[in-house]
Amino acid sequence: MEVETLIRAYNDYIKRINAYKYALKVINFDAATGAPKSAIKERSEAYSFIALEYFKLKTSPEFKSIIANLKNVYSKLDKYYQRIVDLEIKTLDKISKIPPHRYQEFSKLSAESEVAWEEAKEKSDYQIFKPYLEKIVSMVKEFAHYYGGEIDGSLYNRMLDDYEEGMTIKKLDEFFNTLKERIVPLLEKIKASKIKIDDSFIYKNYPHEGQILIGEEILKVIGFDLENGMLRESAHPFTSSISNSDIRVTTHIYENNVISSIYSVIHEGGHGIYDQNINPKFKGTILYDGASMAIHESQSRLYENVIGRSKEFVHILYELLKKIYPLQMKKITEEDLYLAVNKVEPSFIRTEADELTYSLHILVRYEMEKLIIDGNVSFDELPSIWNQKMKEYLGIEPKNDKEGILQDIHWAGGSFGYFPSYALGNAIGLQLLHTMKKELDFKQAIVNKNFDQIKEYLAKNVYIHGKMLSPMELLKEVTGEELNASYYCDYLEQKFKEIYLI
Amino acid sequence: MEVETLIRAYNDYIKRINAYKYALKVINFDAATGAPKSAIKERSEAYSFIALEYFKLKTSPEFKSIIANLKNVYSKLDKYYQRIVDLEIKTLDKISKIPPHRYQEFSKLSAESEVAWEEAKEKSDYQIFKPYLEKIVSMVKEFAHYYGGEIDGSLYNRMLDDYEEGMTIKKLDEFFNTLKERIVPLLEKIKASKIKIDDSFIYKNYPHEGQILIGEEILKVIGFDLENGMLRESAHPFTSSISNSDIRVTTHIYENNVISSIYSVIHEGGHGIYDQNINPKFKGTILYDGASMAIHESQSRLYENVIGRSKEFVHILYELLKKIYPLQMKKITEEDLYLAVNKVEPSFIRTEADELTYSLHILVRYEMEKLIIDGNVSFDELPSIWNQKMKEYLGIEPKNDKEGILQDIHWAGGSFGYFPSYALGNAIGLQLLHTMKKELDFKQAIVNKNFDQIKEYLAKNVYIHGKMLSPMELLKEVTGEELNASYYCDYLEQKFKEIYLI
Repeated sequence: MEVETLIRAYNDYIKRINAYKYALKVINFDAATGAPKSAIKERSEAYSFIALEYFKLKTSPEFKSIIANLKNVYSKLDKYYQRIVDLEIKTLDKISKIPPHRYQEFSKLSAESEVAWEEAKEKSDYQIFKPYLEKIVSMVKEFAHYYGGEIDGSLYNRMLDDYEEGMTIKKLDEFFNTLKERIVPLLEKIKASKIKIDDSFIYKNYPHEGQILIGEEILKVIGFDLENGMLRESAHPFTSSISNSDIRVTTHIYENNVISSIYSVIHEGGHGIYDQNINPKFKGTILYDGASMAIHESQSRLYENVIGRSKEFVHILYELLKKIYPLQMKKITEEDLYLAVNKVEPSFIRTEADELTYSLHILVRYEMEKLIIDGNVSFDELPSIWNQKMKEYLGIEPKNDKEGILQDIHWAGGSFGYFPSYALGNAIGLQLLHTMKKELDFKQAIVNKNFDQIKEYLAKNVYIHGKMLSPMELLKEVTGEELNASYYCDYLEQKFKEIYLI
Repeated sequence: MEVETLIRAYNDYIKRINAYKYALKVINFDAATGAPKSAIKERSEAYSFIALEYFKLKTSPEFKSIIANLKNVYSKLDKYYQRIVDLEIKTLDKISKIPPHRYQEFSKLSAESEVAWEEAKEKSDYQIFKPYLEKIVSMVKEFAHYYGGEIDGSLYNRMLDDYEEGMTIKKLDEFFNTLKERIVPLLEKIKASKIKIDDSFIYKNYPHEGQILIGEEILKVIGFDLENGMLRESAHPFTSSISNSDIRVTTHIYENNVISSIYSVIHEGGHGIYDQNINPKFKGTILYDGASMAIHESQSRLYENVIGRSKEFVHILYELLKKIYPLQMKKITEEDLYLAVNKVEPSFIRTEADELTYSLHILVRYEMEKLIIDGNVSFDELPSIWNQKMKEYLGIEPKNDKEGILQDIHWAGGSFGYFPSYALGNAIGLQLLHTMKKELDFKQAIVNKNFDQIKEYLAKNVYIHGKMLSPMELLKEVTGEELNASYYCDYLEQKFKEIYLI
């Protein structure tokens, strides 16, 4: 058959897939942004049916043959379709390698495991969760074998590759060692510093309506396109790419915390700006996506932390807060606000961590996951190992399992190898910024509120590629070097030494 | 096969249908309540695909055979399943009687016709719309023939039956004659009255946020269950029953009109209360719906006009407005508000009509439709006939086609026989109320804010039946008599004679 005919068959077929994907995304978004909780039964029934139809379409013999036909003419395809074929085959392979009955059992187990985790967390009792964790770990190992088994003698390598194409323990050990060597001593010095930041004004009452206004204003300022998207409220902030011209972000408003929603909005705004600037010719295909979770996270964190917590951006934020909340901000200076949004304070809960200690929380999880997957550790020992690591890296020791090993849902659902992406994101953001600074005056752009200059650079160099390149290829292409954690550490040292006068 | 097996097959099958229906409703609701306009292409692609799958499921040989099997054991079914089978067969018949290629042509024509209507309305030029109207009328007549042709010598009877089971010109002539004989002279007297109502305070500035608060408060007061529903904003107010435990209403806020959104909210709230109180055992079936459009409208209008514009309710509203908008309401009395929301003023546009003149707008349309479908009128004459009727019944003559025959989209889409339901709804509401008053003190219930008493009566007598009974059967069952317009006319006379001192 003609190559054009095969391509047309592919494009016609994915229109059907995309219709289901669209419906699933809208139902999800609707559920998270106000749909009555009581309606969960009818929603779940409808959702699971549509999800099943979607899954059937994605794995149908018809689709497999469309992809196989394209593979047969691979050399005649342009590089975009070659990449599409590679990625589709990888996805199909993954699905088809798991025996269906084992996949069903896994779905059941992970659902039960998440319920057990919830109960265990509530009662702060790891023993409730332990038997499920053991089974889940055994099953994700089994699955990793289906996917191809060990890479360089490690099953964990296989799991890492699942989230970040080409990522390995070897690379991550080097990466996290750099972080450990440079952030842990920095944190020690900060804790010894005489500078004590008073951020109590943040926790006054800041009425809801004003925070919504600030959120929308911030999105406009940083260059999120509200004409092709929206801001809504949900229990947990997230970004949803409903379609290429409909990218939505959400936030959660706490009236007793004025910065929580602001930084959620900038974070999700960063994700949103990424998705809004992928090459439009990829729309509807598997290429219309970020390069990887770490690359996506590098952008949300670049916007949230490097831009959002900079002196230059705090100046903009300060003006905004003074306008909307004149009473609450009456005696607060710009410097007060800058210090408050950059206060370092080791805490037990990852999701509440400050910019500096965040990666240390990930370091703990990374080392735990290596032990759990590749090591010979007893499941009984895990909580105490967790607590030791927290003490070693953050200098604080959880008093119970809830503050410790039970805080995240990820393992209950079988997600191993996912956590490192968060820390990689932090570092990649700074590595990209280092290269960006050769072409533009980053700080001056913020001062001038010229966020388009930043966005256009990132769009041209990063976002436009969508999923054309693997994360590490993209990083190499833009920065000319491999993953390098030193830019991130340099940034942290410079910033926090100045703030804490050390 | 066992009856139980056949019923199970039906229930399993409609779960699939309902999943698609759920997705379509959520996508529609999302599109109407904030989804980016720019994303219309991707949304339409997804929507039409899902809609097509839904249509295929509803008309599949499998579904037809499930219904046929149930029909075979009809006498062994309980009355609920008998009614389900009757209604499903009616729907299937309707779909299968139209040759598919004619249906496609009709879809195309009505889409083009709506575009032409829009242009014609904008330019206030009936000639642009005329050729499309002719084609549409010819086609809806053709379709009425497929459905079974004339009833008692009239094709229009066939169309009426489509919206209100069993409705005929004979019944409607009698109905509208009563309205004509009693409302037209009443309106004459009102126009001659010395009472001139000043409602200018309504059009001051009433900020958005306060109107949202009032809307939610009103829904709570009248007994709409916000835990199983929600209030959102959209360009045009509507009610959407996403599922039996997820009934949503919308409104449109005008900052320069404080009552527009309030009465939209009560109107849609009435629709919503109906849907929230249908027998839960009907959920997911064709019975989980109002008895007909007129019965549904009877409830929205009962809440909007009879309750919402009563002295007793205006008292509640007045307190609410004084609290939220103290400055705007400073010199306004409760009596001022009552008169303002009941001001009678003949106007050209149906959707802006007051409670009294509304049914006269429908009378004009009803008489036009009879002429267009059953009569021998020339399409060239229609605008002047319209204008004559407006002059005769409302005493005002449209200056152009936009104010006249071009104002409604209904005919462009082929909806003939739908308008009468609006007027029927007004009258049915009052007929039901007449019976209700034998069991409870309606006014006192409003004074006591005991809206649950009203809701429970209506739920028990009307809503619970869903689509079990035809509209006229339901009316007979509850009130013991056939459609009777006199209660509605009595109500209008009594109310407006008191207001206008005539």
